[in-house]
Amino acid sequence: MKEEIMDVALKRGFLIPSNEAYGQVSGFYDYGSVGAPMKRKIEDAWRKSFIWRDGNLEVETVMILPEIVLKASGHVGHFGDPLVGCEKCKKKFRADTLVADAIGEKAGEGGQGEHVKRLKEHLARLPGMNPEELTEKMRELGIGCPECGGGFGEVGWFNLMFKTNIGPVEGNPGYARPETAQGIFLAFPRVFRAHGSRLPLGIGQIGKSFRNEISPRQGLIRLREFTQMELEYFFNPESALHPRFGEVEGRKVRVLTREAQVSGSDEAQEFTAKELVEKKIAPNQIMAYFLARETEFYESLGVPSGDFRFRHMLKEETPHYSGGNFDLEVSTSYGWVETIGTAYRTDFDLSSHAKTSGQDLSVFIEEEKKKIIPHVVEPSFGVDRLFWAVLEKCYRSGGGAEGRDWSWFDFPPRIAPFGCAVLPLMKKDGLKEYAEGLVRALREEGVNALFDVSGSIGKRYARQDEIGTPYCVTADYESLEKGTVTVRFRNDGKQVRVPAGELPARLREFAKAGKVTA
Amino acid sequence: MKEEIMDVALKRGFLIPSNEAYGQVSGFYDYGSVGAPMKRKIEDAWRKSFIWRDGNLEVETVMILPEIVLKASGHVGHFGDPLVGCEKCKKKFRADTLVADAIGEKAGEGGQGEHVKRLKEHLARLPGMNPEELTEKMRELGIGCPECGGGFGEVGWFNLMFKTNIGPVEGNPGYARPETAQGIFLAFPRVFRAHGSRLPLGIGQIGKSFRNEISPRQGLIRLREFTQMELEYFFNPESALHPRFGEVEGRKVRVLTREAQVSGSDEAQEFTAKELVEKKIAPNQIMAYFLARETEFYESLGVPSGDFRFRHMLKEETPHYSGGNFDLEVSTSYGWVETIGTAYRTDFDLSSHAKTSGQDLSVFIEEEKKKIIPHVVEPSFGVDRLFWAVLEKCYRSGGGAEGRDWSWFDFPPRIAPFGCAVLPLMKKDGLKEYAEGLVRALREEGVNALFDVSGSIGKRYARQDEIGTPYCVTADYESLEKGTVTVRFRNDGKQVRVPAGELPARLREFAKAGKVTA
Repeated sequence: MKEEIMDVALKRGFLIPSNEAYGQVSGFYDYGSVGAPMKRKIEDAWRKSFIWRDGNLEVETVMILPEIVLKASGHVGHFGDPLVGCEKCKKKFRADTLVADAIGEKAGEGGQGEHVKRLKEHLARLPGMNPEELTEKMRELGIGCPECGGGFGEVGWFNLMFKTNIGPVEGNPGYARPETAQGIFLAFPRVFRAHGSRLPLGIGQIGKSFRNEISPRQGLIRLREFTQMELEYFFNPESALHPRFGEVEGRKVRVLTREAQVSGSDEAQEFTAKELVEKKIAPNQIMAYFLARETEFYESLGVPSGDFRFRHMLKEETPHYSGGNFDLEVSTSYGWVETIGTAYRTDFDLSSHAKTSGQDLSVFIEEEKKKIIPHVVEPSFGVDRLFWAVLEKCYRSGGGAEGRDWSWFDFPPRIAPFGCAVLPLMKKDGLKEYAEGLVRALREEGVNALFDVSGSIGKRYARQDEIGTPYCVTADYESLEKGTVTVRFRNDGKQVRVPAGELPARLREFAKAGKVTA
Repeated sequence: MKEEIMDVALKRGFLIPSNEAYGQVSGFYDYGSVGAPMKRKIEDAWRKSFIWRDGNLEVETVMILPEIVLKASGHVGHFGDPLVGCEKCKKKFRADTLVADAIGEKAGEGGQGEHVKRLKEHLARLPGMNPEELTEKMRELGIGCPECGGGFGEVGWFNLMFKTNIGPVEGNPGYARPETAQGIFLAFPRVFRAHGSRLPLGIGQIGKSFRNEISPRQGLIRLREFTQMELEYFFNPESALHPRFGEVEGRKVRVLTREAQVSGSDEAQEFTAKELVEKKIAPNQIMAYFLARETEFYESLGVPSGDFRFRHMLKEETPHYSGGNFDLEVSTSYGWVETIGTAYRTDFDLSSHAKTSGQDLSVFIEEEKKKIIPHVVEPSFGVDRLFWAVLEKCYRSGGGAEGRDWSWFDFPPRIAPFGCAVLPLMKKDGLKEYAEGLVRALREEGVNALFDVSGSIGKRYARQDEIGTPYCVTADYESLEKGTVTVRFRNDGKQVRVPAGELPARLREFAKAGKVTA
């Protein structure tokens, strides 16, 4: 499945191997002319849901950070993987993965499957095992190089940040940020003051982050350069309530609880957001609020609710300061893949920056007449993994109920790469010019419409289905006479005639209804 | 002026010094909660004008590039500045700037002003003067350290790219891209094939680029991390025509010609786009088309046409392969600042990548039955400089005709940070809840509306003027009775009452008219 989807994604302009003429460097993908507008629409959908809807605010902070910032955040010291090199072929590997694989093999895997394997990997990754211990463990397990069978040297530590130097004087190290969050924490004091100095306050941003992975192999799942959509929701821990919780309290959320995991189960259970709070599964109402909103958001993007779950991370998997982490995992052809991490970071980041910088980052709470360091719940979305999940979930291979011999994508209209395609039935008799007028008018109205004149109309319909364009607007001879055009819906091939002047409004209406109606 | 605007921009949430708690590293700014949405609207406006309108396509390519790409593009070899260090205080300086300043001082500047100074700087920067020659020149002019008066050592060469290493094995250098363009060139073959293999084809992208400036000092004008909006327009040089040239041929464009510059003049002349072609000032129709569209675009963002010009760069200032470059320069409080470069890059980039990679990057022209390397005209916009220009041009200091004692911004509504503000007259009597309903409905309709309940209504109006919010929607007791609200226009303070349900449509209408009407 993953090979088929990647093949389609490359062929149809969703993705491009970066710097392809030179042979792609692993861990880097470009978004092509079809993928880039879809990615942007996913980002816009997030902005509307997670920024605008709740009156949160958006910032855009820089990607190259001086070392001190990442020392305070813990990334310089702890953001890395144990690395080991083969003494024969010189290839480098992640030591923890080698150990986890070896343990898995020895255990014969039993019937517990991937989940337990991943847990072991997580455990192996914990600070509990330092490079020395991993070196010993590798010797104990007799692990040899998977490529050439050679022996391994000592395990070292590899920091996963891209390092550089800022300015012409050496000794001013900087790093490409490993997450967008730190920029938000440092921007917090000014944003807080510019907006009435009140809590709660949500500040988000969409942007690139970077991780210099050791040997990334899994397409969009493990990239060295990727896009995050992160929201830091700052609140007074004395009242960890969300003002709009009432809107989602009945919303069902699928959770793989800690209890289930410990007992070896892989089954998610359904809870309402309200139950998550009452049963104390979520650390507070704000966390439950976001899990509910994330569920709504994923469903609206075409990821069915049965295909994802929130895994409550075990205490041992989370940092000491964490008040609780939930990973939204989607079932994909790569297995369960974490695509959102929602973390109760408490006051860790602001406190660390206050301590390291010597600045007072506390805020004054008018009602309580005291200063506090706000707490933070952070939903952190990986755009590329979500993009991939949408591709997988919306893919329809040919030969289905529609009797098509081409594969197509059932993207929700609001994130489809193009809002519609405009197709003149023929190039001649003024049809092309008429259709050009239509496409201009649509673009003026904010619809990113494609225009296509080449090939038979049937071929052009198929081509649009293949990239998931929800509507094909065709200009024919009746258009010239009566000013009406046909609109064909991707999913069922049904067509209706509508007056050309009403197109933008009718397309919006169709998109809401999920079908075309007379 | 620049200090006043920067002060206002920082205070009101447009800009934030990056990592402020640690002391800002020069050359880095964040966009705050007011600036970020405005920046995004400027980018969206560009997307609509330069991508959608003409049926061009958009991609998103990676920022970290392997060295070979930037060797082919010439950046590894040539993208740098001559650097010299003081032997006493160890500070580093750009040698060419020191030389240009010294020449300027010696010449007493005459009456020729900044333009000639900049020309000299340009000339000093040309490959004509290598580090050895600059070293000699500095000695000849007796240049000492401007900070401590100490003597200088030899001039060296400093590459302006941020360098890093890709992966755990040393010796795989990568760089943060110095421009977005190279990613587009490398994506070209796949985008071309995915869209019917036809020329002309415009491919653009919006994204961050990076230059490790030696000692950047000029606010948003010289950043180490900045955003570009670049379009590469690929065409067959046998027919360098733009299909929509007819729409702009009468558009006036202000050009500072090469002749004027050589004769020492600083006066721009007006030409129609058609005249630029006929008089062979523009190298082709495509270049003239873009200069006309750029003029339209800037005017629509609130930069008056009298405040910018296209400087036709002198032959000596452009690379050997260039078919002609025009810099759009805006008159700002920093002097004339280049904010767009429009370059006829001929086939240089594709040819270089073909040569270095050994791949065939030519395309087959059906009509001529031959293979060619397409030529390219590239309009390259600097978003941050444009953002700054908009701030300067739209700033209205208090005490004007409106009799205000607060300063405000006259942003065109479509790029104002917030589409409107919703203000309940009072917090009590259900007015707050009514206004909350309004703000939700507006956000659903795609208006990024602010909500503000704190302080007197007059204070809140002033606060919105200060960040350039075009409309204030106020809910009062009549709203509760009759379902109507007042809409106040920023520029003149005039108010009209409109039914709440018609708000989104009426706001769009007001934005088009540039005022509020009953």
